[in-house]
Amino acid sequence: MENIGAVFVSEIVGTAMLVLLGTGVVANVALAKNKGLGGGFLMVTIGWGFAVFAGVVVAYRSGAHLNPAVTLGLVANGTEEFGMGVPVNAVSVLAYIGAQMIGGILGAVACWLAYKQHFDAEPDPANKLGVFSTGPAIRSYGWNLVTEIIGTFVLVFVVIAFGGDRQGQSGGLASLGALPVALLVIVIGTSLGGPTGYAINPARDLGPRIAHFILPIKGKGGSDWAYSWVPVVGPIIGGLLAGWAALILLPLLAA
Amino acid sequence: MENIGAVFVSEIVGTAMLVLLGTGVVANVALAKNKGLGGGFLMVTIGWGFAVFAGVVVAYRSGAHLNPAVTLGLVANGTEEFGMGVPVNAVSVLAYIGAQMIGGILGAVACWLAYKQHFDAEPDPANKLGVFSTGPAIRSYGWNLVTEIIGTFVLVFVVIAFGGDRQGQSGGLASLGALPVALLVIVIGTSLGGPTGYAINPARDLGPRIAHFILPIKGKGGSDWAYSWVPVVGPIIGGLLAGWAALILLPLLAA
Amino acid sequence: MENIGAVFVSEIVGTAMLVLLGTGVVANVALAKNKGLGGGFLMVTIGWGFAVFAGVVVAYRSGAHLNPAVTLGLVANGTEEFGMGVPVNAVSVLAYIGAQMIGGILGAVACWLAYKQHFDAEPDPANKLGVFSTGPAIRSYGWNLVTEIIGTFVLVFVVIAFGGDRQGQSGGLASLGALPVALLVIVIGTSLGGPTGYAINPARDLGPRIAHFILPIKGKGGSDWAYSWVPVVGPIIGGLLAGWAALILLPLLAA
Amino acid sequence: MENIGAVFVSEIVGTAMLVLLGTGVVANVALAKNKGLGGGFLMVTIGWGFAVFAGVVVAYRSGAHLNPAVTLGLVANGTEEFGMGVPVNAVSVLAYIGAQMIGGILGAVACWLAYKQHFDAEPDPANKLGVFSTGPAIRSYGWNLVTEIIGTFVLVFVVIAFGGDRQGQSGGLASLGALPVALLVIVIGTSLGGPTGYAINPARDLGPRIAHFILPIKGKGGSDWAYSWVPVVGPIIGGLLAGWAALILLPLLAA
Repeated sequence: MENIGAVFVSEIVGTAMLVLLGTGVVANVALAKNKGLGGGFLMVTIGWGFAVFAGVVVAYRSGAHLNPAVTLGLVANGTEEFGMGVPVNAVSVLAYIGAQMIGGILGAVACWLAYKQHFDAEPDPANKLGVFSTGPAIRSYGWNLVTEIIGTFVLVFVVIAFGGDRQGQSGGLASLGALPVALLVIVIGTSLGGPTGYAINPARDLGPRIAHFILPIKGKGGSDWAYSWVPVVGPIIGGLLAGWAALILLPLLAA
Repeated sequence: MENIGAVFVSEIVGTAMLVLLGTGVVANVALAKNKGLGGGFLMVTIGWGFAVFAGVVVAYRSGAHLNPAVTLGLVANGTEEFGMGVPVNAVSVLAYIGAQMIGGILGAVACWLAYKQHFDAEPDPANKLGVFSTGPAIRSYGWNLVTEIIGTFVLVFVVIAFGGDRQGQSGGLASLGALPVALLVIVIGTSLGGPTGYAINPARDLGPRIAHFILPIKGKGGSDWAYSWVPVVGPIIGGLLAGWAALILLPLLAA
Repeated sequence: MENIGAVFVSEIVGTAMLVLLGTGVVANVALAKNKGLGGGFLMVTIGWGFAVFAGVVVAYRSGAHLNPAVTLGLVANGTEEFGMGVPVNAVSVLAYIGAQMIGGILGAVACWLAYKQHFDAEPDPANKLGVFSTGPAIRSYGWNLVTEIIGTFVLVFVVIAFGGDRQGQSGGLASLGALPVALLVIVIGTSLGGPTGYAINPARDLGPRIAHFILPIKGKGGSDWAYSWVPVVGPIIGGLLAGWAALILLPLLAA
Repeated sequence: MENIGAVFVSEIVGTAMLVLLGTGVVANVALAKNKGLGGGFLMVTIGWGFAVFAGVVVAYRSGAHLNPAVTLGLVANGTEEFGMGVPVNAVSVLAYIGAQMIGGILGAVACWLAYKQHFDAEPDPANKLGVFSTGPAIRSYGWNLVTEIIGTFVLVFVVIAFGGDRQGQSGGLASLGALPVALLVIVIGTSLGGPTGYAINPARDLGPRIAHFILPIKGKGGSDWAYSWVPVVGPIIGGLLAGWAALILLPLLAA
């Protein structure tokens, strides 16, 4: 039980780091008067990629899931232990996901503090929400869901393949080193991020959306709850499918 | 024979991953209303580079050729075994190339699904084809062929040099780690991609072109079959030349 | 005492390298007639990131702090030895910080020499100062301080987490390898650099500001001393907080 | 003597690879109708950086100098052996430099072939020369020389520091791994490339200039021989100074 507490803290800290740096790069390119204003989509993907890098480094001991879709994908894949020898069961899964949601909220709050004046200076409420949570380029829940499923499938399938390179270690991401997953997140952004902004992580999207809803952001608009289920359900489906696909395919592939 | 089946699946999965993420970045920068629209050539090269990274990771056991020009270059180089101890012969070469073609088609289909609405929203048929397959900036089959030969020569020659660093392992790319080849593909894009869009891989170009031909893409134009042989023949020539050149030069060079 | 001299030289050389290459990229994108003029914020963050890479490589033996906030953060974290077995005490802390300040001044002078003609050709005094030192996008000392505290907290907290991966080695950064910290500095730039230009290092900001004040730069304006305390005090607070936070959290996290 | 022949070939192949990919990225961003036209300075620096990566990989056994300034810097640093146990003397130094010049010419010829149609389509002779060789943003031989000296000093000093991490291996770059030097060349480009286009390598600049002079390039102008000595003399001075500085400083620093 002691280790459950440690992985809980680890996932909070790692997800908060990830979300602070990830939402931060969007704030930089999107909010008025920033030095990085208009920095472009490539800069956003590099920022999010290395945000994952930093988050994984500090959450090494819990396996650095930082994402309910990863946690559930590992469950579907038949993982028996998460980080620090914590067994996979309902309690530990809820601890991981709960911690990720808390971390997502805290990271978004820290981003808001770092960019407080630029949130105040930004006239467009949609840009403010866009810092926190994703939204579709063309709204169509079905197709948006397809895009999120494909993006998350790639994430979780390749992450499990990383882990498969280093057997005898627990928990998937723990054994990874943080660079490969950062490069993977960069390419998911460049290559599958166009239609929906690649949430591919319920905690990264819903956590900051809750923060947006709660925080006293000057001139904010609605939190677009109508869309909010897509970047939750899509990544969960994609993660589960990837876990099952990896169960079948990876014994043949990455050894 | 069992292992032939495994490398066959491995090459399908790896090439599909590569082509999904590689065509995806072009879709993001080229198709209407995407968040990455106009993201620039550098973003395309980074996307393709890390697409190769993800493809190589999941196809580790087959040596991650993912490209008929690599397979044929290794044959020309005198490789005796591909991944998993599969001997080099007509059957295994056809298995590799067939799997790569299938993977190329499947990856392009997945890209079309991920970007379905943006294909529908894009008015220019040339942009739609450009997501799937390469085309020349200045059409001239002879010079376009030269450019593809040079680009693929660089790819296969350096890939064999990577392998040469780690003797005693089979199949060229298997021993590579996925990052060096990703960086190599980035630089081939930045530096030799201007005239023809750097197919440098028949499966990456012909597979998606077949998908373009088959799929019910709204408002699509022709699949430019007149040019389609260039990104097949050029890479094959370049790969074979690189395999032979490496046979002569690399014993002197990368040890 | 001999080793104090060596770490002193090491920190001078490393910080000078860091500041030369870091201020250099700003000169390239900001000063008239440069080939990189208008190269964009992403280029600046990549330049600064790999500037840190080069600085860390040459200052390996002193632990490559190159930043008073890192030195003080390590003290707050309870580090007992800096690089080369130098004990942590008032003398060694002052040696590190003094060397970093000297290095910051020297690096800025070298940048001025490399870009001498472009400083002469640039009409806007604010752009000249911007090469040397940071300034806020929206001036508000309190919020600017918050942004610098958060950015430096991320830097020092993750740097200490890097060190925690490799126990039995002294001094935090010495054991790091230079790439992870470079990627970390890139993401702090992309993601927290919008409001204040991410000084996150008193020596990087105050050293060059002193150089700006002293050097006979043609057509220079004031050195903005009114703001100069923010990128000193903010990073020191952020570094200390990170050192204490890491003391509590990291035993739970990165092992 | 046999090994002299091998390092000679190795340096030719490596420098040709480096110069093909390095001049190629400039062709892509600068010559009419290319897909990468206007790709920006960051793309150029990334292309040149990974061009060095590819060149170093294939020239591993000769130590991958690929640059007379590196060879001379190692001599000044007191290196006793180059790659493959070749002793440092007048003959071997000339073999390295001669091979580098030949490689520079060959690489530029290959670039011209790859971009043949775009050289034909480009109306501005200055852009054509700019693909081959560097030129100053503001012409002033003295200051241009200073910039090239500083840039090459950084290159050679840090390269020797890389080597210092791995004692017991010969020839400086041989032990390097190719990634660190690629990142170093990227940052020299972003941060010191604005005034002169960072030749930092006589073979990279003079070799292609000779190719430009000889090749039947349609509508070419002069080869700017008046400036041609600056990117030869500057890098040689910078390399020698770095070799001597490293001799004094590095025993204190990177162990």
